[in-house]
Amino acid sequence: MKEDIFQSANNLLKGNIWLDALFGIEKENIRVDIDGKLAQTPHPTVFGNKLKHPYITTDFSESQVEMITPPLPDIKQTIGFLETVHDIVSLELTDEYLWPQSIPPILPDDEQIPIAQYDEEGKAAQHYREFLAKKYGAKNQLISGIHFNLSYSEKLLEVLYHKINPSLSYEEFKDEVYLKTVRQMLRLRWLYVLLYGDSPVVDSSLELKCKLAPYTINNHVVALSIRNSCYGYRNISDLYPDYSSVTNFRSSVEQMVKDQQITSFKELYSPVRPKFMKSPEHISYIELRFIDIDPLTKAGITEEELSFLHALTLYGLLSKEPDCFNAEAQAKANRYYGCVALYGLDAVPCMFEQEGEQTNIWHKAKTLIQEVITLFEELGIDKSEYPDSLSHAMQLTKHPEKRKVHEVLNGVHTIGYIPYHLKKAKDYLLESQQKNYNFIGLEDMELSTQLLLREAVRRGISFDIMDRKENFIRLEKEGNIQYVKQATKTSLDNYASILAMENKLVTKRILKEHGIRVPKGEEYTHAETAKADFIRFQGLSVVIKPNQTNFGTGITILKENRNETTFQRAVDIAFEHDSTILIEEFVEGKEYRFFVMRDKVVGILHRVPANVAGNGIQSIRELVHLKNEDPLRGKGYRTPLEKIQLGEAEAIFLQAQHKTFDYIPMAGEIVYLRENSNISTGGDSIDFTDDIPDSYKQIAIQAAQALNVSITGLDMIIPDYRKEASKDNYAIIELNFNPAIHIHCHPFKGENRKLNEKLIDALGYKPV
Amino acid sequence: MKEDIFQSANNLLKGNIWLDALFGIEKENIRVDIDGKLAQTPHPTVFGNKLKHPYITTDFSESQVEMITPPLPDIKQTIGFLETVHDIVSLELTDEYLWPQSIPPILPDDEQIPIAQYDEEGKAAQHYREFLAKKYGAKNQLISGIHFNLSYSEKLLEVLYHKINPSLSYEEFKDEVYLKTVRQMLRLRWLYVLLYGDSPVVDSSLELKCKLAPYTINNHVVALSIRNSCYGYRNISDLYPDYSSVTNFRSSVEQMVKDQQITSFKELYSPVRPKFMKSPEHISYIELRFIDIDPLTKAGITEEELSFLHALTLYGLLSKEPDCFNAEAQAKANRYYGCVALYGLDAVPCMFEQEGEQTNIWHKAKTLIQEVITLFEELGIDKSEYPDSLSHAMQLTKHPEKRKVHEVLNGVHTIGYIPYHLKKAKDYLLESQQKNYNFIGLEDMELSTQLLLREAVRRGISFDIMDRKENFIRLEKEGNIQYVKQATKTSLDNYASILAMENKLVTKRILKEHGIRVPKGEEYTHAETAKADFIRFQGLSVVIKPNQTNFGTGITILKENRNETTFQRAVDIAFEHDSTILIEEFVEGKEYRFFVMRDKVVGILHRVPANVAGNGIQSIRELVHLKNEDPLRGKGYRTPLEKIQLGEAEAIFLQAQHKTFDYIPMAGEIVYLRENSNISTGGDSIDFTDDIPDSYKQIAIQAAQALNVSITGLDMIIPDYRKEASKDNYAIIELNFNPAIHIHCHPFKGENRKLNEKLIDALGYKPV
Repeated sequence: MKEDIFQSANNLLKGNIWLDALFGIEKENIRVDIDGKLAQTPHPTVFGNKLKHPYITTDFSESQVEMITPPLPDIKQTIGFLETVHDIVSLELTDEYLWPQSIPPILPDDEQIPIAQYDEEGKAAQHYREFLAKKYGAKNQLISGIHFNLSYSEKLLEVLYHKINPSLSYEEFKDEVYLKTVRQMLRLRWLYVLLYGDSPVVDSSLELKCKLAPYTINNHVVALSIRNSCYGYRNISDLYPDYSSVTNFRSSVEQMVKDQQITSFKELYSPVRPKFMKSPEHISYIELRFIDIDPLTKAGITEEELSFLHALTLYGLLSKEPDCFNAEAQAKANRYYGCVALYGLDAVPCMFEQEGEQTNIWHKAKTLIQEVITLFEELGIDKSEYPDSLSHAMQLTKHPEKRKVHEVLNGVHTIGYIPYHLKKAKDYLLESQQKNYNFIGLEDMELSTQLLLREAVRRGISFDIMDRKENFIRLEKEGNIQYVKQATKTSLDNYASILAMENKLVTKRILKEHGIRVPKGEEYTHAETAKADFIRFQGLSVVIKPNQTNFGTGITILKENRNETTFQRAVDIAFEHDSTILIEEFVEGKEYRFFVMRDKVVGILHRVPANVAGNGIQSIRELVHLKNEDPLRGKGYRTPLEKIQLGEAEAIFLQAQHKTFDYIPMAGEIVYLRENSNISTGGDSIDFTDDIPDSYKQIAIQAAQALNVSITGLDMIIPDYRKEASKDNYAIIELNFNPAIHIHCHPFKGENRKLNEKLIDALGYKPV
Repeated sequence: MKEDIFQSANNLLKGNIWLDALFGIEKENIRVDIDGKLAQTPHPTVFGNKLKHPYITTDFSESQVEMITPPLPDIKQTIGFLETVHDIVSLELTDEYLWPQSIPPILPDDEQIPIAQYDEEGKAAQHYREFLAKKYGAKNQLISGIHFNLSYSEKLLEVLYHKINPSLSYEEFKDEVYLKTVRQMLRLRWLYVLLYGDSPVVDSSLELKCKLAPYTINNHVVALSIRNSCYGYRNISDLYPDYSSVTNFRSSVEQMVKDQQITSFKELYSPVRPKFMKSPEHISYIELRFIDIDPLTKAGITEEELSFLHALTLYGLLSKEPDCFNAEAQAKANRYYGCVALYGLDAVPCMFEQEGEQTNIWHKAKTLIQEVITLFEELGIDKSEYPDSLSHAMQLTKHPEKRKVHEVLNGVHTIGYIPYHLKKAKDYLLESQQKNYNFIGLEDMELSTQLLLREAVRRGISFDIMDRKENFIRLEKEGNIQYVKQATKTSLDNYASILAMENKLVTKRILKEHGIRVPKGEEYTHAETAKADFIRFQGLSVVIKPNQTNFGTGITILKENRNETTFQRAVDIAFEHDSTILIEEFVEGKEYRFFVMRDKVVGILHRVPANVAGNGIQSIRELVHLKNEDPLRGKGYRTPLEKIQLGEAEAIFLQAQHKTFDYIPMAGEIVYLRENSNISTGGDSIDFTDDIPDSYKQIAIQAAQALNVSITGLDMIIPDYRKEASKDNYAIIELNFNPAIHIHCHPFKGENRKLNEKLIDALGYKPV
C-alpha cells in the first residue's frame, strides 16, 4: 500500500479553512394523492424540460420529483436552497403532496407505476428507465433518498498541496484526497446510518426481498433503515471496484460493464461514489448516497446531520486507514453497514471485529465520535455547528432512543404508516404556503431578491450570487446571462436614465418638458437665495428638501408657509444634507406607488400607518397581537410586513388621541398607532392596481417614457382616485430607479401582482 | 397715454431677483485671408447645414460667419459660449482669420462679394440675400455687429405680476414689460454707443454715403461708431413703428410692408426689436442691435458692457417715460443716436433738448448713470458686476479718452487700419489654439465635459446643462436626445454592467470566468479570516484593499509579504473603509489605461510622476518653471495637466535623492519630483495608443465584452509592452465606468485621440 500523505496533515494547517467546501444535495420525493397513493399525474409542466431544468426534474418515475441544489459554500444555504425548491414544487401541485419518507407510499402494481416520460430528445433516458424497471422492478426504484455531494474548496486543497508538498501534480493530489475520502466513508458510513437512519417501516404494497430475517410488526417490515439494508435498492450482485487510483477504479468498473454486471458507470449503486465532472481523468467531488429522507423536517435533512457527515469526511481524510481496501475489506464494510441498517434499532447483533476482538457497536460509535471531536479540537475549528453536531451525535450514542427514527416509529404505531406520513406532508405544504416569499438560507438578502430567485428556480434559470451583501446575482438560461442587483437594477435600463431618475432636479425638468405635472418648485445652491424666495412660496404648502436623498432625511413640510423664520430654518436643515436643495409646492392628496415595467403599470400600492380595526370586544393591545400573527409580518425586514410595535412611540401617538393600549375600539373603528406610513413601523400596504383609473396609469407610463426607463417605482399624489386624471389633479413626486417588488407581491390587502415573474419575463426568459 | 404700471415697482421687490434673466448673443465676423481681404472660400463644410446648425451659420455673405449662443442665465456664461464658438470656428479655418471689427476689411467690388450659398432647401434664404444686395448694396451688408437678446426670467416676471397685480392677463403684462423696455432702450441707446461705440474707421474700399459731413483722416472716414451712424446699414427711409401695444406694433409694421417700404418684418432694421418666438401675439424677448464688435477682445464683447446694458434695460423699465413715443419722438431719439455715433469721439455738437433747455451730452450721461446707480442701490442689488459696470461707465464720462475706441484709433493711426485689425485677429487665433480644451464660461465643469460640449457645438448639436455641478448635460440633434453625466456616463451602457464594473469582486470573477487574467486574490468579510490567510500570500507581492474604493484610500501594497504583523495591520486598514476587502497578488509592471469604446481601443495612456529632463545648464527649479509654462498645465484641474509644485513634498522626495531644487541635472538626466504618478501632483500623461501591440488591445476589448460594456477605462498591468501579450504576461486591475476623456485628448506627450469626437459619434450623431 502507498504511503498515506495525509497522515499528519492535521499538524500542517489549522483553523476553519478545513471547512471550506462546496455542498450540493439531490433529493427525491414521490408525489402522492390525498389518500397517500402514488400520483398518476404528469410532472408539472410549469417546470419545463426535464433534461434541462437545473433544479427540478424527475428520477425513475414520472411521479418521483428530483430536486437538485447547485454546489454552495455553506450547508445551511444548501439545505435552504433544497427547502425552497421543495416549497416551489409543493406550491405547483394540486391535491398532491410530496411524500416525506424514503420508503414509498401506497404503490400500485409494477406496470401501473408511471415511468418518467420524455420528449424525443430524452428517449435514451426513458429507455434506460424502462430497462431498470425490467431489471430491478419498478417498485424498488421508488425507494427514494438524499445524495449529498461534497467537494473540498480549491483554496483548502491548494494550501494543503502546498503544505504537504507531495511528489504529485496538483490534479493527482486532489484525486488522492477524494479517493481516500471515498474509501474512508465506505468504511465509516455505518455510523451515520446508526444515528440518522430513518426508513423504518414498509407498507405491504412494497414487496421486498431480503435473505436476512426482518423484524415485522403488523405485517410491516421494521428496521432502522430499510433503504440502506438488504431490502434497499442495490446492484443485483455485490460489486467491489478498485479504489486505489483513478485509473484502477475506472478499469475495474469497465470490467464490470464488460462482464455485463452493469450496463454503465451510472448503474454502479455504490453508497459512496467518486464523481467525475470536468474530465474523466480526475475526481471533481464525492457523492454520499446513504442518507434517508427525514420525515420530521420539510427539507428532509438538517444542517446538523450534514455537518456531522462533513466532519466525518474530514476525519476520514486525516485519520489512518486501517487496511487496504480490497474486495474482502469492502465486503466486510458492507456487512456492518447492512447489519446496522437492518438491526440498528437496537443493534444487538452488530459487533465489530477488530484485531480478533469483538467490540460493541455503541462503544465503537462513541470512540469514533470522540476521535472526530479530538481532531476538530486539534484543528482549531470553532464554527459552532460542527462541535455541536458532534456532541449531539455523542448524545445519541448514549441515548439511542432519542434518535429520530423512534419518533417516526411511534407516530407510525399510533396512527399508521400512511396517515402519519400524509399528515406530515400536509403540514409541510401549509408551511410552504404560509412562508411563500423567502428563499430559505438567503434570508439575509433583500426580499425582492429572494422573490426573484424563487422565480428563477421555478423557471429553471440557474443563478449565482455574485455579491451576497450587495444582492448582486447572475441569472443564466439558454445563453441569456443577466446580472441583477437588488432585484430591479438590471440591464433593461441604460445608465443615463438611471442618473436622470437619481437626480430629482433633472427628473422634474424632463417631466415638465414633457407636459407632465410635477410640483412647482425651484432649486437653490445658496441658502440666502432660498431664504429670499420666502415671498414666492408665501401662503403655499411647501416641501423643503435636499436635492439628493433617498431616506427622507432633511425634509421639512410646511403646510401653510406663513412664518419666515420657520421657512429659513427648514432651508438650513435641507442644506445640512446637500449643497443643492429644492423648495417645492406640496400637493395635497394620497401618495401611490406605481410600478412601471416596460411601458406597463404592473402594480399600484398605497401605504397606511400602523393601525388596528376595532370589533368592540378586544383592546388595542389584543388587536395588535392578533394582527401580528399574520405570517406576512415579522421583524427586521425578513417579511413583507413588519409587526406593529407596542412601544413608546405608539403609546405617545395614542395618548394624543386620549387612548391607551387597553382602549377597546368600537366595531369598525380604525385606530392608528403611528403617524408615518412606513412599512418598517408596522404600516399596511394596500394594493390599488385594479382601482386606479387607466388615465393615471397612462400618465405614469408617459413619465417613464419621458425618462426612457424600463423599470421604475413612480410616486404620484392623487387627491381623489375615483375621479379620472385631468391636467392638474395629480402630481408626480419622483421616479425611483430601485423600487422594491416584494411590496407588490405580498401586500397587506390585495392580490400578488407577481412582479418577480414579470421581471423574469422582462429580462428575456421565456414565460412558462 | 396709458398708466405706467411699473412706475413704483422698484418699491415692491428687492434683491438680485431683478437680475434674473436669459441672455443670448449673435455675432457676425467676416472671414479674411492672410492679407486682410474678404475670404472667397466657402463656409467650412464641417459645420454642416447652415439652416440647421444652432450655433454656427452664415449671415448675408458666405464669408460672414454668424455665431449664436442659446439663451443662458448668466452674462459671463453667454460670452464664454460665444468665445468658445469663436474658438471652434477659428480652429476650422485654414490661413484665414475672423475679422475683429464691425467695419469690414478690404472688400472687392460688390459683384465679387460672395452671397451665402444654400442647398435646395435654403433657396428662399439665398434669394432674399440677393434681393438685399440689390436693394442696399452688398458692401453695406458686410457691416457686422453684435445682437444682444434679453428676456427677463419667468420667475421675475411672475413675482412682479403678482406684486403689481395689474388688470391684465400675465401674457399681456409681459408684453407691457417688453414694450416699455423697447421704447426706453430706443431712447437710451445713445448712452451705450457714447461709451462703447467702437467702429471708428472705414477702409476706402467701402464706399459709404451719408448726408452729414464726416470727419476724415487720410481719406478714412473717422467717427465714434460708423456702424451706428448714418453711414451704417439701415432702412432706406426712416420708419417709425407704433410701440404702444403688440397689436399696434404689428399693424404698423404690416402697413410698412403694404406700403412697400420693407418686404417683411425682418427687414425692419430697428436698433431695438421686440421678438416673437412662441406666438406672434406675445413678445418673447428683446433684441438690442446697436453693439459694435470690440476689437480689443477675442469675444468682441465684455461682461462689463453687457451688464451695463442689462442695467440700462432695468432702469428703462422702472423709470418714468418722458413722453409718448410717436414718430416725432422716435425721430428725435434717432437724431441723438446718429449724432452721438457720428460725432461722439468728442461729441461737441450733440446737445440734449429738454423742456426747451439744451444739456451737454456728458452731463446728461453722468446724470443718467447716476440714476441707474441709485436705482440699483434702492433695489438692493449686490451682484458686484453691476455696480462695477456702472461705476466704470461713470468713469468713462469723466475720462472719455479712456474709451476703447481711442485705443483702437491709436492702433489704426500707428500701423494702419488693416494691419492693426489683422494683428488682433492673428493674436486671437493663437489664443484659440493654445487654450483649445476649455468651454469658456463653463470652466467649473469637468474638462471631459467641456471637451464634449465643444464637440457638440462644432457638430451643431444643441445642448442644455441639466445640472451643472453634476456635469449632467443633454444633447439634442435631429430627434436624437442623449443625457450624459460626467462625459462618459451615458445611455450606451446598461445599468447592470455599470454595477458590475463598480464592484471589483464581481468584475474580477466575470473576467476570470472569461479566461482573462486578473491578479489572483480573495475577498474577505471578516478580518480574522483575512489575517489567517497570511499563509496563502506569504512571500508573494500583495495588494490589500477595500472592495469598493475609487480614490485609492485604504490600500496597502506589500512588495514581499513576509511580516505577519504588517499584513494584519494592512487588513485592519482596509476594513476601516469597507466591510468587504480584497487581498490580491500584486503584478509587477507598468500600468496602462486602455480607453475602450464600442469594441475598440481608442486610447492608451501611461502616467509618470512629476519630472524634469536636464540640459546640463538649468537647475531643477528653472526646469520646473519652464515646464510649467506649457498652456496645458494649470492649477485646480482646469487644465489637462497640473503645474509641478516646488513644495515640501517635492523637496523631501529630492532630498532622498540627495538633491535640492538648485541641483542642475545633466543633459538627458530625468529627475523625478514625486513618487506617485497622479496628474494632480504634476505627473505627465504619455500616449501609447500606437505603441502597445494589438494583442493587448484584443484582451482589453474581450474584457469589455465580458462585462457587456460600451465605454470603459480599463487599467492593465504590462511588464514589457514590447513583447506580444501571452496568457500570463499581463493582468487587468479594474474597469472604470467613468473614465476621463481629456487625458487622452491633451496628453503631455502624444497626439490628441479626439475621444470627444468619438464619443459624440458613439452617441449616434452623424459624423462630420
